Amino acid sequence: MKKISILGATGSIGIQTLDVIRCYKENFQLIGVTANSSVEKIKEIIDEFKPMYVAMNDESSYYQINNYCTEKKYNTEVFVGMEGLKKVASLKEVDTVVTSVVGMIGLEPTLEAIRAGKDIALANKETLVVAGEIVMKEANKYGVKILPVDSEHNAIFQCLQGNKLEELDKIILTASGGPFRGKNNDFLKKVTVEDALKHPNWSMGKKITIDSSTLMNKGLEVIEAYWLFGCSYDDIEVVIHPQSVIHSMVQYKDGSVIAQLGSPDMRLPIQHALSYPMRLKNIAKKLNFYEMNDLSFEKPDIKTFKCLKLAYEAGRAGKLMPCILNAANEACVDLFLNKKITYLQIPEIIEECMRKFDYLKTVTIESILETDTSVRNYIYGKYN
Amino acid sequence: MKKISILGATGSIGIQTLDVIRCYKENFQLIGVTANSSVEKIKEIIDEFKPMYVAMNDESSYYQINNYCTEKKYNTEVFVGMEGLKKVASLKEVDTVVTSVVGMIGLEPTLEAIRAGKDIALANKETLVVAGEIVMKEANKYGVKILPVDSEHNAIFQCLQGNKLEELDKIILTASGGPFRGKNNDFLKKVTVEDALKHPNWSMGKKITIDSSTLMNKGLEVIEAYWLFGCSYDDIEVVIHPQSVIHSMVQYKDGSVIAQLGSPDMRLPIQHALSYPMRLKNIAKKLNFYEMNDLSFEKPDIKTFKCLKLAYEAGRAGKLMPCILNAANEACVDLFLNKKITYLQIPEIIEECMRKFDYLKTVTIESILETDTSVRNYIYGKYN
Repeated sequence: MKKISILGATGSIGIQTLDVIRCYKENFQLIGVTANSSVEKIKEIIDEFKPMYVAMNDESSYYQINNYCTEKKYNTEVFVGMEGLKKVASLKEVDTVVTSVVGMIGLEPTLEAIRAGKDIALANKETLVVAGEIVMKEANKYGVKILPVDSEHNAIFQCLQGNKLEELDKIILTASGGPFRGKNNDFLKKVTVEDALKHPNWSMGKKITIDSSTLMNKGLEVIEAYWLFGCSYDDIEVVIHPQSVIHSMVQYKDGSVIAQLGSPDMRLPIQHALSYPMRLKNIAKKLNFYEMNDLSFEKPDIKTFKCLKLAYEAGRAGKLMPCILNAANEACVDLFLNKKITYLQIPEIIEECMRKFDYLKTVTIESILETDTSVRNYIYGKYN
Repeated sequence: MKKISILGATGSIGIQTLDVIRCYKENFQLIGVTANSSVEKIKEIIDEFKPMYVAMNDESSYYQINNYCTEKKYNTEVFVGMEGLKKVASLKEVDTVVTSVVGMIGLEPTLEAIRAGKDIALANKETLVVAGEIVMKEANKYGVKILPVDSEHNAIFQCLQGNKLEELDKIILTASGGPFRGKNNDFLKKVTVEDALKHPNWSMGKKITIDSSTLMNKGLEVIEAYWLFGCSYDDIEVVIHPQSVIHSMVQYKDGSVIAQLGSPDMRLPIQHALSYPMRLKNIAKKLNFYEMNDLSFEKPDIKTFKCLKLAYEAGRAGKLMPCILNAANEACVDLFLNKKITYLQIPEIIEECMRKFDYLKTVTIESILETDTSVRNYIYGKYN
């Protein structure tokens, strides 16, 4: 029986993680959950799973949940704010922490979980993007496993099993290409929020759906892969594969390519990360090759989809540049979703920030948080 | 430095194995070779590789090679006949024996190699088809590795690395479909030897090229997979994949599919089987996904391509039925190549033999050799 905490239980990955736990009651027990302010969803989770600990980031939500647990006479302990998130991340009862919060806010609780010796089922890619060096060093120091939940990195992790990292030739990250694959700048000029939220294959949260459409999601994944698997940026190749059947591949130095394939259902990598090194019976639909459409591949168009190019640049520059990229992207996506900026301003403003901010300072949690705040303040001040 | 013997050094796989050894002089040393009667090719091999031992199956070829080595003052010891093949299969200097002879004749030397504790790079699928039970039991008893050289089984072997056999859901053997994919019986009636020898993707020997066109090759591979990987026939699925980029796949019980991909170049699996558990730098062309054509999949047409259906039937019947299937197929392919029977008579005659011969005797080397001879004699007597 593996004991689980979920950071960000009410988001898309959080909800799908709950579904996995629901399907395998004999394998997993939910001990703790956190959320920002989704009071109603957290109430449902408490009713169903009876977790021992809950943390709400938002203070008024905390009071509501605390009252709810008292009224219902639940034995649930309720915490508040970042300190609360960190508590749920480091509970002594827990084996694995699922980090499915969206954005930078996942960083500190993830580090707290690592230092408490918890294995990490990592769905919060921003953590590695902005602080890969710190996170991987700590994971190594505390001997914890970082099990990727992103379908691409989970695929690569599977393709590396039984193989040696030093025999790796390159990682081939597949990308669906998003809803605007094949479109040009003239088309992208007119893209609305509604257009960008229609992803062809995956059902995901809003932020990641926009990132998929700009290819920034793939860019962040390139940086994530760099830290997870320790290969150079030259050895990470992005291939557009619109059918999302091959979730990613690894090429070895003998020319052999190992690929992982599956239905586009996030419960598959979540299940794998939670049950590793075991595999459990599937809950997602299996592939049927007799009825499969043709699988195709193409080179990404980085002239039109500049975010991918910017992410490679940020990754190669290193230091605080990925933090600048990520903060600028989070702010821009937020402003775009709120119709304050246009679709094509997203890469423009990110590039502006990458030129403007100092990225060469030493990477510490403090310098990361400081840079992150400066970039966001700058963007909200200028474009809101 | 791994020391290698090749049984069947002058055939297609033998020659490609020599090319692998030529490319990795620091990793492999050729100690012994065998051939049936290809005197000129063996002379070239002796000149280039200076093997310590040679065996010729054919007696007059033996004398020619023996004289050649005396004239040239080579220190090569030359043997003759089945006893000679067995000697080269069990040399004390050798680590790995490549069994690349074609057909039933590989059985006895392969067993001899296993009993001498040699790892087997298995390219002679007939060995497992007719005597899988005996071969796997002996391999287990003597603690030797059976490393598959067939590109499909080598792919499956790679896809199983780092995974547990008991978590396997099914093996997905890919097949190009051969030159007559999509054709019907009316078309097959008129197929000539020349038509059947044109394989779209792979460069192989004549026997296996005909087997690929009838799908018997895939049928034999199904039986081979049954013995190599110990799964039931219900868990071995054949999928037509005309591009031959995916060399085969394994589906696990969580719905995850691991695939191995590569160029259609036999040197890739040969190299893998010889260097395992290491991987060496590639000599074959690498895949380029930016320039790849669409990959497609379809269900095999077993109504038209009856040999695949017959092979599943023989495998499921067990005992000596695979031996009957294989002997009948070898005789039929030989008669077809010599224009004594038509293309569609191949499955007809095989089916006739499967109905006619007693398959329920205990499987021993003697009963295998006896059944093999009876089937061949019957076919040559009736159809030659």
